[in-house]
Parts: sequence; C-alpha cells; structure tokens
Amino acid sequence: MTAAASTGLLTDRYELTMIDAALRDGTADRRCVFELFARRLPGARRFGVVAGTGRLLEQLQRFRFGDDELRFLRDNRVVDAATIAFLQGYRFSGSITAYREGELYFPGSPIVIVEGTFAEAVILETLALSILNFDSAVANAATRMSIAAGDRPLAEMGSRRAAEHSAVAAARAAYIAGFGATSNLEAGRTWGIPTMGTAAHSWTLLHDTEEDAFRSQIDALGIDTTLLVDTYGIEDGVATAIRVAGTQLGGVRIDSGDLPTVAAQVRDQLDALGATGTKITVTSDLDEFSIAALAASPVDAYGVGTSVVTGSGAPTAGMVYKLVARQAADGSWVPVAKSSTGKASMGGRKAAFRTREHGTATSELIVVADGFETLPDTPGHPDARSLQVTIVDGGEVDAGAVGAAGVAAARDHHLRVREELPVRALALSRSDPALPTVFVDAAAS
Amino acid sequence: MTAAASTGLLTDRYELTMIDAALRDGTADRRCVFELFARRLPGARRFGVVAGTGRLLEQLQRFRFGDDELRFLRDNRVVDAATIAFLQGYRFSGSITAYREGELYFPGSPIVIVEGTFAEAVILETLALSILNFDSAVANAATRMSIAAGDRPLAEMGSRRAAEHSAVAAARAAYIAGFGATSNLEAGRTWGIPTMGTAAHSWTLLHDTEEDAFRSQIDALGIDTTLLVDTYGIEDGVATAIRVAGTQLGGVRIDSGDLPTVAAQVRDQLDALGATGTKITVTSDLDEFSIAALAASPVDAYGVGTSVVTGSGAPTAGMVYKLVARQAADGSWVPVAKSSTGKASMGGRKAAFRTREHGTATSELIVVADGFETLPDTPGHPDARSLQVTIVDGGEVDAGAVGAAGVAAARDHHLRVREELPVRALALSRSDPALPTVFVDAAAS
Repeated sequence: MTAAASTGLLTDRYELTMIDAALRDGTADRRCVFELFARRLPGARRFGVVAGTGRLLEQLQRFRFGDDELRFLRDNRVVDAATIAFLQGYRFSGSITAYREGELYFPGSPIVIVEGTFAEAVILETLALSILNFDSAVANAATRMSIAAGDRPLAEMGSRRAAEHSAVAAARAAYIAGFGATSNLEAGRTWGIPTMGTAAHSWTLLHDTEEDAFRSQIDALGIDTTLLVDTYGIEDGVATAIRVAGTQLGGVRIDSGDLPTVAAQVRDQLDALGATGTKITVTSDLDEFSIAALAASPVDAYGVGTSVVTGSGAPTAGMVYKLVARQAADGSWVPVAKSSTGKASMGGRKAAFRTREHGTATSELIVVADGFETLPDTPGHPDARSLQVTIVDGGEVDAGAVGAAGVAAARDHHLRVREELPVRALALSRSDPALPTVFVDAAAS
Repeated sequence: MTAAASTGLLTDRYELTMIDAALRDGTADRRCVFELFARRLPGARRFGVVAGTGRLLEQLQRFRFGDDELRFLRDNRVVDAATIAFLQGYRFSGSITAYREGELYFPGSPIVIVEGTFAEAVILETLALSILNFDSAVANAATRMSIAAGDRPLAEMGSRRAAEHSAVAAARAAYIAGFGATSNLEAGRTWGIPTMGTAAHSWTLLHDTEEDAFRSQIDALGIDTTLLVDTYGIEDGVATAIRVAGTQLGGVRIDSGDLPTVAAQVRDQLDALGATGTKITVTSDLDEFSIAALAASPVDAYGVGTSVVTGSGAPTAGMVYKLVARQAADGSWVPVAKSSTGKASMGGRKAAFRTREHGTATSELIVVADGFETLPDTPGHPDARSLQVTIVDGGEVDAGAVGAAGVAAARDHHLRVREELPVRALALSRSDPALPTVFVDAAAS
C-alpha cells in the first residue's frame, strides 16, 4: 500500500489542526497526560482483553512525516508552515505506560497512558484508538470462545470476513486471547502464529468425483489430513472419505447443517466404519454460544470465522483517548475532564492494580493523582499486582513487547491472568463487569 | 507494515495446499469460473452496494510472491517445491468481470466473476472476499445514512473505531456510498476524498479556559471554523463561542446529549444571539436511524463514526467465493455447485442485468449458462442494462477503475443508479430485498 512507509497520515485531520493552533498560541509544548480507556465493556461482557499494544509500538516507530505526507498536507492547506516544520521532525519523545498486552481490563481501566507535549501526544489519538479498539474487540470475543472450547483446539479462519490487513490483526488478537492457530498466512509470517487449513468446497467441485478429490488430497497432504465431507451429502462424504483413506484418516470437516445432530451422526458413522481415531472439525458460523452448545457433542476441534473477526456483535471496543492532566503555565499538574452530559471522564494521572484474595481477583483498583502527588508502586492492599508497564520510555520502544516474541508473551500473560478471574466472570451471558472498578485518591492511598 | 511490498500472503493456507495437490494431480490448469456473491443482504436491508473492486485491483497488482514470502512457505513446509516454483512466477493472467463499483446488488448477484486456471483463480479467494466484504459492509450502511441525511452534508469520522488500514478503506466506501468527506487524512491522500475536522475536547481542556481555546482556534483557523461547544456546558459553550467569535462564526459542533432537544435549544440560542447563519454539526453516536430522527431538527451537518465503519450492525457483507463452472477433461464447461444442506449455490457462468420499467428498477435478471452457451449482451427485456464490466482482461487491469478517479466514478455511478430504485427501497426498516432476483436459463433467454 502507498502508506506503507509512513503511518503518519493514519490520523484524523483535527489532530493536525489542533497542533497548528497550539503552535501559534504557545500551548503545543505543555506537558500532557492522555489516557486510553473504555467507559464500558461492549456487549455487556464481564471482562475485556487488551490487545494491540505490540502493534501500536510497531506503527509508532513508523509514525513519521516524509516528503509525500508533507506535500499532501501543504498542497491541501491542512496546516501552515510551522506545523509542516514540526511534523517534518516528528519523533515521539514522551513515555507510554500501558496494561501488558493480554491483560484483562474493566470500565475505567487506564489501558494506555501517553505522556508528552500536547503536540506529540494528541497526534497519536487516532492511531492508538484504531489499533486498540479493533484488536481488543476481537480479543474480547476470542477469549469467550476459548473459554467455551475448553481443551479442544480452536482455530481462527475469518480472514475473508475482515478487511485484508485487519484479518492479520484479528488472527493475532485471537491467538493472544487463546486461539491456537489461524488460516491466515501473513499472520503466520508476521507474528509467528501456527497456520492451518487443507481444502475448500471448490477442491471437491474441481474434480470429476468427490473420490478423486479426496484421493488427490491424501496423495499430496498425507493420511493425517482433514477431508471436507459436506460438498454433496455428508453421509456419502464420510463413507467415501474412509473408503479412500482407510480408518487411519486424520479428520473430517463439517461446514454446514445442524452441528450437534450432524456431529453425532458422523461420529457414529466413523466409529461404525472403524475410524475411531478420525477427528471431527466443525466450522459452520460458530460463535461462543454455539461452541458452548457443542460441549457435549463428539467434536474434536473448532474453526471460527465471522464471529471472531467481527467481535461477535461488538466490532469495536469503544475505547476513547482523553486528555486527563496537563501542566499549567506555572508547571503544576492540573487534572482535566469533560464534564458535559453523558460522556464524563475521570481526570488525573492514574496507577492501576488488580486486588486479589486467595488468588482470585476482587477489584480493579485505580489510584488517581489530583496534582503533583507521586503515584504509588503498590497500593495499600495486602495482595495486589500492578497492571502497568512502561512500553515507551523517552521515545524508546520496549523491544520485548513487539514482534512474534511480544505476541507469545501476551498470550502467556492472558492465559495466566484469566485464571485469576472469579468463576462468575467466565459465564457467557450479558452481565455487569465481573470486577468493580474502584477509584481512590492518591493523597489518601 | 512488513507485508507492504506483497499482498500474496493475505491468503488462507488452504488455497495453497489445494494448489499443491492440484499441481500433482493435473487439475491445476483446468479453466475455472469463480463467482463472488452474497446469499442474502446483511441486516435484512433492501439493497446492497458494491464497494472495494478498485482496491481489489490495486492489491491484485501487488499479489506476488517474493523471496521473503517463498522463504516463509518453504521453511514452514506449507507447500512443496513445485508449488513454490508456481508461486514464484505467479501473475494473474485470467479475466475478471464485475459489477461496477458503486453498483447495487441483491442476493445472488454475480458481483465478481474470476475466470482463469484453478490455481490462479482459487488463490484470490481470501483477498477478494476480505476487500469486498468489508468495503461493501461499510457502503451498505453508508448509503442508508446518506439517504437519511438528504441534502445535509455527511462526514465520515470513524477511523478510531476501525483498524488503522480498514479506516482508510471505510472512508473510501462511505464516500462512494454518498458521504461527502472524511476525517481520515490517508483517505484524502490515497483516494482524493475531501477531509475535514477542527478540534477535539482535548483542545478545550488544554487551555486554562474555554474562551482561550476558542479564541486561539479562531486565530488559527479563521472565523469560518466550527467550535466544539460541549466540553463543559453546552449553553455556556455557545454563549462563549459567539462572544469570542461574533455572530459570523461558521459553526458549532455538539457531541453529546439528546440531540433533537439540544439542537433545537442551540439553534434558538444562536438565533437569539444574532448568529442566525452559524451552522450546527452533530456527531454523537449517529446511525441511519438517529439521522432520520433528526430530519425535522435544525441540524446543518452530520458526522458519523462508529456505526458507519462497523456496518451499522452488519460488519461484514457475508459474501462468498465459489467455484461455479469448470472445464472437464474434454474441454466442455461443467456447471458445479455445493448441494449440501443450507449453503447451496447456483452453478454456471452468469450474465446480470437490471430490468426497468419507466426508469424504475424492477428486477435483478441473471442469465445462467449450463454449459458452452454464449451469454447474451442484452437479455430479452425491453429495458434492461448490463451490470457487468470487464475489469481485468488477460491479466491487464482496467486503469480507469483504480485510484482516485475510480473512486470518483464509483460515487457518481452509485448516486445515479440509486435513483433507479423504487421508493420502497429507501425505507430503513428491515425487509426483504427491494428487487427480486430472477434466474433464467441462457438456452431459453
């Protein structure tokens, strides 16, 4: 894509017009704290999953304005010469503190905190939100599917139902939230995620007979492969599969029909044919609810498409990026917040902790600084862990949070912290958040 | 992004494993016709809007496998050496016939038809679906918002609620479907879409007073600018805006509150202050229904975010890519289709027409070839227009369909063909498709 070299224009115009005005009136250099958070959990879910921070760091490193970007802004009179000069030298030199990727979040959790001058921090609003809102929406859905699937393997195969680059991000987010593999090859290359997939209906239709198609697939991919058996009739398909492959066939895939009924029939048929070790994969419009409904069915693996890449009813996490504190002309910190109807937010710098009792999470504890107070490293609670890590320090990106290693670490972290949740948090029904968010004043903590 | 140079791995693994097996068994070179279509209109809408074909053409030109892509496939044993060699030389050399971008579609419309060898055509499944499914989902929602907005300007500002590259595609699709501008700068640069935006709440919060913020914005952006007046209280905000700017202020923006009530109050207040020409823009969680509900309110312009970029409840168009015909060993064409439960499709090559009476569309007429028959250029109907154009011919991409010129043409086309719809098609409520899809046999037509 033409934008590949630079991510600078993945930005809403108003960020640049604000910088334009701020450079004129002298406020561009005011130190600011922006906070990225969610007012609520989309879809009335019980917890959220932070995903996208590793991607944000990679995009941040390419958030530059080169000649092409500057020419566009100049030719279209988006900003004046002073702003062009500012953008030409733009490098984020501030700091970013964030929830570890894979961490859980709740309403009001300070997921990402960006500190820097107004100009260098405000300009990251759209990029940060785009990435976190999409990736977390997918992770929020994926973790529920992962919980519903239990120990059965779960693969993401929804690339075709998301825009082409979102598909790669979706595979990544689903993997962090507990999926085990993806159909998307670019996600395999870029993020080190295991890839899977064998054949589509077109494979069977290409051949003169289903038998020809199965035979050829086995010749090429081996007896361990999974044959798609529902192009014509499932019963005939299964019979043909075992006739061609023998009873050592790796698996069959079913992509249509009423799955609890069909899975039971196919299992009976496979067993009757002696193919007791042949696995059944189902892939037809699954979501967390239909996966849960298949828990007692003889299904060995799930493939999920549309629902995971579209957030299963909540395609954006709805996070916002708000100025919560700034320095006044005298250098003091001023907490700030919009106070108008319906969209109020909580001003002030924040430190976040998850309190626990006997190893089970009990609250999201957020310590708020009204002014200059130092935020604590630990809150006044006997068992609480800090949720924030520094991922950018003076413009330097934490190398451990990016790339395939960052993804693997995020997945490990997610699966570990999910274990801390109280059992009620794992239910799929709509509910209030599983943990209360508790704000306390830094001066009192 | 690392994948920038090549789009080849934006592909599901099974496409390559099928090619692997097809190269072994001799079917890779069979001529095939794949069809991209929707079984239904998502969200029980009355018509759909084709968007993404211009993007598909651009991505197709970069659908290549370079050393990096091939190394990944080899190292991960995705395919064997023969397939690596095939991919190394891959250039799509077939033809693509498609609905013009911006055209309307209905269930079963053959939106994109790809003809080529099995290997060269099957590999485009994921890329084509990813682009068409996302872009059309956005366009499907956007056209309804555009209809609801009538003559009032409508801007897309949802970048932050879509993944960063999807945001650019969403701006493009919304523009094609009738929006007039976007907040997304990359969409401005890449696709020539007008960009807009002035200031966020952080702008007001950055300053010691709202008055300081407004004064600075006017100094920088001029009296024509739009001031965001709901950071603290809307009534105070409007009063401050006019006190600072005078009665010639361009506009005010309201991003919260019960909009019909608030818009009426703000209009009254502006008029009472003498600012009768100051326009009101509203931007708070709008969708097609809330836009329609504001038709009688004194609102001058709308900004839409989340709902348009997420397809307003239908985040994917749900299109599929199916093999519908192939050549047999003797060179004859064989129509093929999956016949299993629930997901049947209509085999055969197809030509599509929109029939009209007195200038109003009456049906989607699809002529189906069972075998070798030539598809007609015009059907046996007194007033019908052909819906398909050749966008790739022997591997050569139609230069008029890409870039900013392609977007402008698509928007013009959409707004023109939307005029053909019967009035009932323009209602927002859930319904059957506004036109019936009629399949006729080519031999009989």
